[in-house]
Amino acid sequence: MREFDLIRRYFAPLATSPGAAGLGDDVAVLEAGEGARIVTTDTIVEGVHFLSADPTETVGRKLVRVNVSDILAKGARPHEALLSLVWPAGRAESELEAFARGLGEDLAAFGVSLIGGDTTGGTDAIVATLTLTGTCLGAGPVRRSGGRSGDGLFVTGAIGAGGRGLRAARGEIEDDDLAGAYRVPRLPAVEVAGLVARHASAAMDVSDGLLGDAAKLAAASGTGAAIALESVPFVGAADTTGERLDMATAGDDYQVLLACRPEGVGALIEEAGAAGVGLTRIGELGSGPGLHLSDRGQPVTLPDSLAFEHQG
Amino acid sequence: MREFDLIRRYFAPLATSPGAAGLGDDVAVLEAGEGARIVTTDTIVEGVHFLSADPTETVGRKLVRVNVSDILAKGARPHEALLSLVWPAGRAESELEAFARGLGEDLAAFGVSLIGGDTTGGTDAIVATLTLTGTCLGAGPVRRSGGRSGDGLFVTGAIGAGGRGLRAARGEIEDDDLAGAYRVPRLPAVEVAGLVARHASAAMDVSDGLLGDAAKLAAASGTGAAIALESVPFVGAADTTGERLDMATAGDDYQVLLACRPEGVGALIEEAGAAGVGLTRIGELGSGPGLHLSDRGQPVTLPDSLAFEHQG
Repeated sequence: MREFDLIRRYFAPLATSPGAAGLGDDVAVLEAGEGARIVTTDTIVEGVHFLSADPTETVGRKLVRVNVSDILAKGARPHEALLSLVWPAGRAESELEAFARGLGEDLAAFGVSLIGGDTTGGTDAIVATLTLTGTCLGAGPVRRSGGRSGDGLFVTGAIGAGGRGLRAARGEIEDDDLAGAYRVPRLPAVEVAGLVARHASAAMDVSDGLLGDAAKLAAASGTGAAIALESVPFVGAADTTGERLDMATAGDDYQVLLACRPEGVGALIEEAGAAGVGLTRIGELGSGPGLHLSDRGQPVTLPDSLAFEHQG
Repeated sequence: MREFDLIRRYFAPLATSPGAAGLGDDVAVLEAGEGARIVTTDTIVEGVHFLSADPTETVGRKLVRVNVSDILAKGARPHEALLSLVWPAGRAESELEAFARGLGEDLAAFGVSLIGGDTTGGTDAIVATLTLTGTCLGAGPVRRSGGRSGDGLFVTGAIGAGGRGLRAARGEIEDDDLAGAYRVPRLPAVEVAGLVARHASAAMDVSDGLLGDAAKLAAASGTGAAIALESVPFVGAADTTGERLDMATAGDDYQVLLACRPEGVGALIEEAGAAGVGLTRIGELGSGPGLHLSDRGQPVTLPDSLAFEHQG
C-alpha cells in the first residue's frame, strides 16, 4: 500500500488540531504566530532510502538533509532535532561513529542542535528517524494549499539527481558525482527559505518526483497545473520525452517547488539571483483540474502512476 | 553496545543547546518558561519491545504509553505527537487498522493530537517511533538532577509488571492480567504530573528497572541512594530477596520514580492520596555515592549489571 493511502485512511482521522493540517502538508505547527515553530519527521530505511553499501557517514548526512529540505521548503530555518536510531547488531562500531560524524557535521552546517533521541537494536536494517523543528521566517509555514490559477510554478536547482544518482550508486551507470548526490542530497542554498517566505503562495519539497509533487501541490490548492517538460532543468542529458519523463518522476531530488502570484514573479526572480538560488519557471497553476503536461509544444500523456497520483 | 554508551559517546557531543540537557535527561525543552513545552521520543521494535504475536492494537497503545510515561514523570501533560512507522510488507492491512485504532484510542485518552508523521516499509520488523510534546505544569520539566541527600525516594504503583508480564506474554507463566500489563503498560493516574510538578526535586519514569533507574537519578543529582528492597511494592508474590531483585531490575514498568525534600513529604503523600495516585516510599537519597541496597535490614550485594550501571 502506498504511503499516501496509509496516512489518509488510518492516521489522518487522528489529527484533530488545526496545526496538523490534517496530515496533508509537509510540516505541522507547534507554536503559531510570528516566528512560528514548525516540525517535521522523516525516516530513512536501509535498502529503501539508501543502499546497504553506502558509507554510513553519508547516511547520517542524508537523514539530516531529507528533513531540512521539508523545513526550507516551508519558508523556515531548521532549529532543533531529535534522533531515533535502530542500529543492527551486525554493524561495526566504526560505522556508527561515521554515522554520528556525518549527522553531526550536517546538523552543525544547518545550525541545528540535537536535543534528544532514542537508540535501540532489533532489526537487520538501519532505521533512522529525525524529528526536526524549524522557525518560520514569515507568519507561518507556506502551505501546499495557497496557490491559485495563474500563479507561476518554479523549481530550484536541477531535477533527476536522485533518480539517476541511484542508478549511479548501484553501478548501473558511471557517474560518481550523481552517485554522491544520491547519497548526500544537494539542497538549494538555505536562502531559499527567505524566498519562499516572502514570495511563495504555495510550496513543498520535491521528494516523490517533480510531476507527482506538482500534482499534489495543485490539488491541495484546488487547481490544476500546466508544466512544459522541456523547461525543466535536468541534471544531465535528457534528449527524449521519455528520458525527461523518467527524471521528472524519479523523486529524491529535495529541491523546492513553489508557486508565486504573477505580480510577485519579478521580485522573486531578482532576489533568487541575488541570493544565488537557482530557480526556473516550469509552468503555471490553472488550466483546469489535474496535471497538464506538454513537451516542446506537444501534449504528453501522463504515466499511469501519475494519472492516479494526482487524483489522490 | 548499551544505549547509554552509544548516546554518551557519539551523540551527546551533538547536543549543544541548553534545553537538550546534554541528552542526559528524559525530555528536552522546546520552549522555556511558564507552561514550558517539552519533547521526548521513544521507539519500539518488534521482537525487542513487544512480541511478534502481540495484537497490533496493543502495540499502538504501548507506543503511546512509553512516551506519555516520560512526559508525566517530568511534571507535564502530554500535548501533540508525530508518528514514524515502518510497516513490513508481510503484515495484513487489518493489523495496520488495529494498530491505528489502538494508537488513536490511547492518544485520545491522554488528550494528545497527532500532528504529523511518516510511514514507510523496508524492514521485517515493525518499527514505530512516537515523538511527543508536553506542557509543563510548573516552570519547566522536573529533571533527574535536582535531588539532594536526605530527600525521600518514592515510586508510584507497583513494580514488576513489565518483567513478570513478559514471561506471562511468552507463555512461561500463566497470568493473563500481567501479560496484558506487558502489552499495554499501566501508567499511574495522569494526576501524577501535578504531584511531580509541585513536590518532586527530581523525577523520571521507571523504564529500565527500578534499581538501575534509581542509581541514574541519584548519579544525576550528584548523590547516592539507599533503597530498602522489602519496602518496594511488587505486582505479585516476591518471597525471597532473589525474586525481589529480579522484579526490581526487570524494567518496562513505566511508573514514576521521584525524590522529595523532607519538608514536602507530608503534602506529597496527602495529595497523592487525594488524587488516587498510589505512592510508596522506598528509600532516600544520600548515604554516600552509589546505590546502597538492603533487604529486611541486611545489606544486599548489587548484581554486576547494576554495579556497573550506576557508575554510568
